[in-house]
Amino acid sequence: MKLIPHNLVNLKSGFFFNKQELNRKVTIHAVYDRFTETGRIGAFKLGFPEKDPIQPHFFWDSDVAKWMEGAAYILHKAPDPALEAQVDEIVDDLARNQGEDGYFNIFFTVVQPENRWTNRDWHELYCAGHLMEAAVAYAEATGKTKFLSCMEKYADYIAKVFMEDHAAAFDTPGHEEIELALVRLYRHTGNKRYLDLAAYFINTRGTENDRNRVAYNQSHLPVREQDSAVGHAVRAVYLYTGMAYLAKETGDAALLAACKKLWEDIANRKMYITGGLGSTYIGEAFTTPFDLPSDQAYTETCAGIALCFFASAMLALENNAEYADVIERALYNGVLSGLSTDGAQFFYENPLEVNLSERFVSHWGARRFPAHRRVACFACSCCPPNINRLLASLGNYVYGLDGDTLYINQFADSDMADGSVTASIETAYPLDGSVTVTAKGVDKLAIRIPAWCDSFTLDRAYTLQNGYAIVENDGAPVTVSFDLTPRKVWADSRVLRTAGQAAIMKGPVVYCAEGVDNGEGELHNYVIPADFTAVEEENATYGLPTLTVPCTKRIADGGNLYRNTPPTTEATSLRLIPYSVFANRDETDMRVWFLTE
Amino acid sequence: MKLIPHNLVNLKSGFFFNKQELNRKVTIHAVYDRFTETGRIGAFKLGFPEKDPIQPHFFWDSDVAKWMEGAAYILHKAPDPALEAQVDEIVDDLARNQGEDGYFNIFFTVVQPENRWTNRDWHELYCAGHLMEAAVAYAEATGKTKFLSCMEKYADYIAKVFMEDHAAAFDTPGHEEIELALVRLYRHTGNKRYLDLAAYFINTRGTENDRNRVAYNQSHLPVREQDSAVGHAVRAVYLYTGMAYLAKETGDAALLAACKKLWEDIANRKMYITGGLGSTYIGEAFTTPFDLPSDQAYTETCAGIALCFFASAMLALENNAEYADVIERALYNGVLSGLSTDGAQFFYENPLEVNLSERFVSHWGARRFPAHRRVACFACSCCPPNINRLLASLGNYVYGLDGDTLYINQFADSDMADGSVTASIETAYPLDGSVTVTAKGVDKLAIRIPAWCDSFTLDRAYTLQNGYAIVENDGAPVTVSFDLTPRKVWADSRVLRTAGQAAIMKGPVVYCAEGVDNGEGELHNYVIPADFTAVEEENATYGLPTLTVPCTKRIADGGNLYRNTPPTTEATSLRLIPYSVFANRDETDMRVWFLTE
Repeated sequence: MKLIPHNLVNLKSGFFFNKQELNRKVTIHAVYDRFTETGRIGAFKLGFPEKDPIQPHFFWDSDVAKWMEGAAYILHKAPDPALEAQVDEIVDDLARNQGEDGYFNIFFTVVQPENRWTNRDWHELYCAGHLMEAAVAYAEATGKTKFLSCMEKYADYIAKVFMEDHAAAFDTPGHEEIELALVRLYRHTGNKRYLDLAAYFINTRGTENDRNRVAYNQSHLPVREQDSAVGHAVRAVYLYTGMAYLAKETGDAALLAACKKLWEDIANRKMYITGGLGSTYIGEAFTTPFDLPSDQAYTETCAGIALCFFASAMLALENNAEYADVIERALYNGVLSGLSTDGAQFFYENPLEVNLSERFVSHWGARRFPAHRRVACFACSCCPPNINRLLASLGNYVYGLDGDTLYINQFADSDMADGSVTASIETAYPLDGSVTVTAKGVDKLAIRIPAWCDSFTLDRAYTLQNGYAIVENDGAPVTVSFDLTPRKVWADSRVLRTAGQAAIMKGPVVYCAEGVDNGEGELHNYVIPADFTAVEEENATYGLPTLTVPCTKRIADGGNLYRNTPPTTEATSLRLIPYSVFANRDETDMRVWFLTE
Repeated sequence: MKLIPHNLVNLKSGFFFNKQELNRKVTIHAVYDRFTETGRIGAFKLGFPEKDPIQPHFFWDSDVAKWMEGAAYILHKAPDPALEAQVDEIVDDLARNQGEDGYFNIFFTVVQPENRWTNRDWHELYCAGHLMEAAVAYAEATGKTKFLSCMEKYADYIAKVFMEDHAAAFDTPGHEEIELALVRLYRHTGNKRYLDLAAYFINTRGTENDRNRVAYNQSHLPVREQDSAVGHAVRAVYLYTGMAYLAKETGDAALLAACKKLWEDIANRKMYITGGLGSTYIGEAFTTPFDLPSDQAYTETCAGIALCFFASAMLALENNAEYADVIERALYNGVLSGLSTDGAQFFYENPLEVNLSERFVSHWGARRFPAHRRVACFACSCCPPNINRLLASLGNYVYGLDGDTLYINQFADSDMADGSVTASIETAYPLDGSVTVTAKGVDKLAIRIPAWCDSFTLDRAYTLQNGYAIVENDGAPVTVSFDLTPRKVWADSRVLRTAGQAAIMKGPVVYCAEGVDNGEGELHNYVIPADFTAVEEENATYGLPTLTVPCTKRIADGGNLYRNTPPTTEATSLRLIPYSVFANRDETDMRVWFLTE
């Protein structure tokens, strides 16, 4: 299907709208301010003293580029002269400081000019890719082409260095991203040289022509032979997205087949219930199938965002609701957990379990203690501006069009207009399960029936196809209603670390419990009953309800450390909040998976 | 009570006897051979070239000393001229190469002579302590005093350097051990200077007179203010043993009170079900209360042995069966797991869970993968000779005498004679629960009733006192019979990592399941029923029965990674072997804690 771009979609109310507004009003400015304070914005002027203790990090360019891309999406929807001026100033700096040959990279211009194109791991091509994405977005948003022209010049230069002269010390990106960016640049400009360069990087990867082939950055095998998601999760999924983009443009069946195998490996074996990816902080990486430890989850915010990109790219290739299901899972849970409720604090990693008792005071440490407080900026601050661009473009995920069929992929109160096709969705989802779709200009509606949903009603005759309910469209409202009763969810029995445990979900929303509500050092002792009725309570801050679930709790009964009888239990209840809003209060325990009867 | 020393006790048959025989016939020689091959034995000649790539490790002295101590215990029971000659040769080398001032340390004589007494972390005093223990044992075993004289001279020199001249670059041992050794040297020689030196090291520790006070080696606080077991587990428990020895000699109530608090912290909060100590490989250390993760358990063999020493020292101070209970737990499980069934391969660490699926092939690694194969020798090979000396002196743990009462602390088929007191124990424990004690020369018998035992019979009137059944002794056999029906055991609810799980024990023996018997990648899916009857099967190699327990197993049913229904189950059974004999076949999964209904 063709995914309807966000500029043709208006979010009007509800969870996604509120997050988008928070980004427009708070987050985009918070990130700008932090990036100004830390010197990231000013670095584009190349004006700092060489001895400055804060030298530009070697991927600061990409941090700012993602912020610019987010700003562009905001500007695409409504004018904001102040914001546009901020972008323009950076563009002017960039244009002024771009090399004659088209090169632009702050670190390798100011700090290590002698090392241009020598260190594959130092993210030059990654920075270039993000700048290209931002340039395309800014051109589409404002019609201004200065930034785009700079990036076309840079892309031409990169094509010469890598594809023609083979003049760099490495052959393919150490941190993938530019592949998908080049396809976007091609789509906007129509210049096939950029598609060729994307194809060159993708097709060279892992071959004999690719020096230093390692799994960490997915260059261990030619991409068409890869069937297991390995290595650094963000790099991996950016690559897979680029592969899917390329397959969409070229119709390359072998490439699409590889994408599908990699997708299945992620979605069926390596994805947390929150949509998070990356089971270990070492290498921020995928590990082995079904290795999904809650406390050691790394699940970088950027990896969840990359998963949304990959899923969208697959959805554009195949009209299958499973891709939209995963986008929903990530957006409501492991991606938006990356942003505080006040819109100005961020998680880089998003663990599924925090036990304060495991934060050892001893100086020699022990097992890794997970992140448990959001912060305003990171030394490696890739995630905050990634949230900027994701939230500003959330409209991308709602509608799709294929021939005479309008696809409803996400349930957001919204309207859209794309030529002769107009549509609207009225819903308070996921507060309420009722979704009413009204469309004109299409013969059919394909409404996603989430895989999590065991029970729904639809007020028309329908057929189910690849996870969509297909109904004839006569322009009248069509209403589907999903059962959002809070339920228990189990993982595949091959998942070692959640054996015997269940999570609580309401619709697409994963819930968690915090120690501040339920007692510190206690969460592992709550036992969810076989059947339960949760009490739901509105929460304006969260935009999602809290839940109270009756249960039993194993109590410390003062016996020996090891004993012949199980711990005694008491009847109590467990207060749950949406996972995405954990750690917005005190430092506290947190848990997603609970013992269950 | 006075613990009857091993030389007055004859083990006659059964589990302990068999292990002792294995040590005498195989293990003591295997360790000698490995120590010869690696240069540890030859290093006592100081004759290797300075540039030898295998330079003596800075605590090789202690490895050999523990082997000598083990050999001495064997010689104490029966002559073995070849073994005695091996010891004598080392003693001769040592005597020849001891300094005029009494100093003896191979590393700081050959490799870094300029650094004597400068590096607290390089185990000089630890090596000295082990040599002293060996010298005492050898003098007691053979009556030969050459080794002992050398070590008295060394102890006198150490007393001068540390206690009088304060001439070293540090004040107390970085790796404790010499404290308990000096008390043993005092007990044997009657020279109070050695007791004073032990007291000096213990009393100076963690005070203002102790430079570089850190928790890692228990010097963060004066010892009487310590109430939490912290830092490197072996160092900690050797120190606590030394403190208990000193309290026994001096009657120091404050020191005993500290020992009791530290004991309670270990036994009630920081001990694995196997008797293993040390929850993290980082620093081989204790962590926080109730932090007992199975797969990350470090539980060094030496730490389990040290726990036996500490428990014995406490038992000598207080007639309380809880100390003997812990010795039993350690001996049958986490200590003897350190030795292969063939007697020649060793575990340094003793994990409680091995998941082969978590051994990542990726070069960048992830979470620590536990030890899963015993080896013949380690670079840091402290554990093998520690097993030598423990097994050779197992008789130490069986009998105790206090006034008119003979204490039966462990149930081993054996006899003893100490002056006018003679006794025997007839039993096949723990194959069978029946234990018959016959004693002469005492008015009362105090037979330990293990805390794990919910049901026993005794063929006399008895009163229970501190975990012992006290019966009048008339010289006729007294039989107690313990119910050894395999049972489920639970941990205190505050133990996070075993929540919702139970272990299987038969008497004192902890059982585990291996993948080779039950399927790899499957052990976490077995669910032990609420009630069960285990089928027991004899196993001559293990000396303990295997168990087969009917249960259900969660199966991989091909659904989504996350689903609204629990995994389906099938009826099956789980084959269990004693934990102490895990990893004697192929590399395989292993698990102690199981899901339970």
